[in-house]
Amino acid sequence: MVERQSGVALWRQIADRMRLAINNGDFDETGMMPPETALAARFGVNRHTVRSAMASLAEEGIVRPIQGIGTRIERRDRLRFPISRRTRFSQGLGNQAKELEGRLLGSATEPASIVVADALGLAAGTACVRLETVNSADKRPISRATHYFPADRFADIAAAYERTRSITAAFRELGVPDYVRRSTEISAIHAEGEDIRHLKLSPGAIILVATAINTDLAGRPIQFSRTRLAADRVKLTVEPESEEK
Amino acid sequence: MVERQSGVALWRQIADRMRLAINNGDFDETGMMPPETALAARFGVNRHTVRSAMASLAEEGIVRPIQGIGTRIERRDRLRFPISRRTRFSQGLGNQAKELEGRLLGSATEPASIVVADALGLAAGTACVRLETVNSADKRPISRATHYFPADRFADIAAAYERTRSITAAFRELGVPDYVRRSTEISAIHAEGEDIRHLKLSPGAIILVATAINTDLAGRPIQFSRTRLAADRVKLTVEPESEEK
Repeated sequence: MVERQSGVALWRQIADRMRLAINNGDFDETGMMPPETALAARFGVNRHTVRSAMASLAEEGIVRPIQGIGTRIERRDRLRFPISRRTRFSQGLGNQAKELEGRLLGSATEPASIVVADALGLAAGTACVRLETVNSADKRPISRATHYFPADRFADIAAAYERTRSITAAFRELGVPDYVRRSTEISAIHAEGEDIRHLKLSPGAIILVATAINTDLAGRPIQFSRTRLAADRVKLTVEPESEEK
Repeated sequence: MVERQSGVALWRQIADRMRLAINNGDFDETGMMPPETALAARFGVNRHTVRSAMASLAEEGIVRPIQGIGTRIERRDRLRFPISRRTRFSQGLGNQAKELEGRLLGSATEPASIVVADALGLAAGTACVRLETVNSADKRPISRATHYFPADRFADIAAAYERTRSITAAFRELGVPDYVRRSTEISAIHAEGEDIRHLKLSPGAIILVATAINTDLAGRPIQFSRTRLAADRVKLTVEPESEEK
């Protein structure tokens, strides 16, 4: 598993694998990292490498050495959710989780509020379909989203989402083979109301709120969504595209 | 001031101007919006337009109508801080504030930790300059940042920052006319330690944490920074650059 020729420092590869193991819950029973010797055996490296990897995880705040006791797991690392022109939930989380799930909590057709109409380039009051979804990674809820779509083009999107469990696949079924992110706004608030229950948060927990507009390739807005992400489980990454392209 | 030919709906322009007035603290004395007639007179529009603008601000959660009392200001709107390939603090906030200030709290030259070295493409232990800064908009602290620079190229950056109060200007003085953002990672946590004091937050307040790497135009990392932004005052916006460029 460890690529000794890959050009990535060995301690870094081990830190990455430890992070994965922590996220997978391998050490949840004790909440502590196994001793260095056990980790060295498990990963097939020497104790010096294990120590460098642990130091790196400690700096990230993932583990903390406790004098005379061992190394406590402070938090699972956060999944990286990339914000880009081609943001997709499942592709975005990629191989960070074994199992990704999208679930429809409810849907409705209703007149667009001023904010929704403005985002979708419609007159206020125009019929829109609203979907309420929750996404999980490896059974842990990650995000709770409210999506709006123009009803004239996407009257059947709730059914398509139910069948496919994916906005991307639902768009495809409804004649939109591809789409892009126009803009994303990111803020952070304390979790409120039903979000606490759906995301299995404790009171006072923080959620990242990402408000986004997607358009078809002709530039017409097709989706406005307000996604609430559990901040203890997800971080957002932005890698601006190069201008040289 | 109101552009009747601009193609932007009049109520929207008025909503924008009301938002600015709220952010400027024009109504802080009462914490309430003036009556519709007063607003109509102030902005030179009719009451119907004022009502649409207020409805839009109410939907954004900025104001809230209280039965029989009037319209209460719920919160100042957040400054928009754009994350892009060319992220700069002062340009980013642009004309959203009258006065932007950068202040140096301290600096040190020290060996790079594993995380810092990794971000800057250096060997761990290589000398780096660390700057501690706080940025304000219209006297309100907005962000508290810790920046790291390779000491071989930027030994004098603390003095340059003190003179110019700008990272961009300091880079220019030190022979880097231009630079770009390679990546940004965004998470949200409860404010901790000294950040609470520097950002004038209340305990339990949320901060957005943006961890970023900037490179010179040759692609060499020149800055690694961890910026803590007061989430009640700032939201981040991402507008992916078009691939067609």
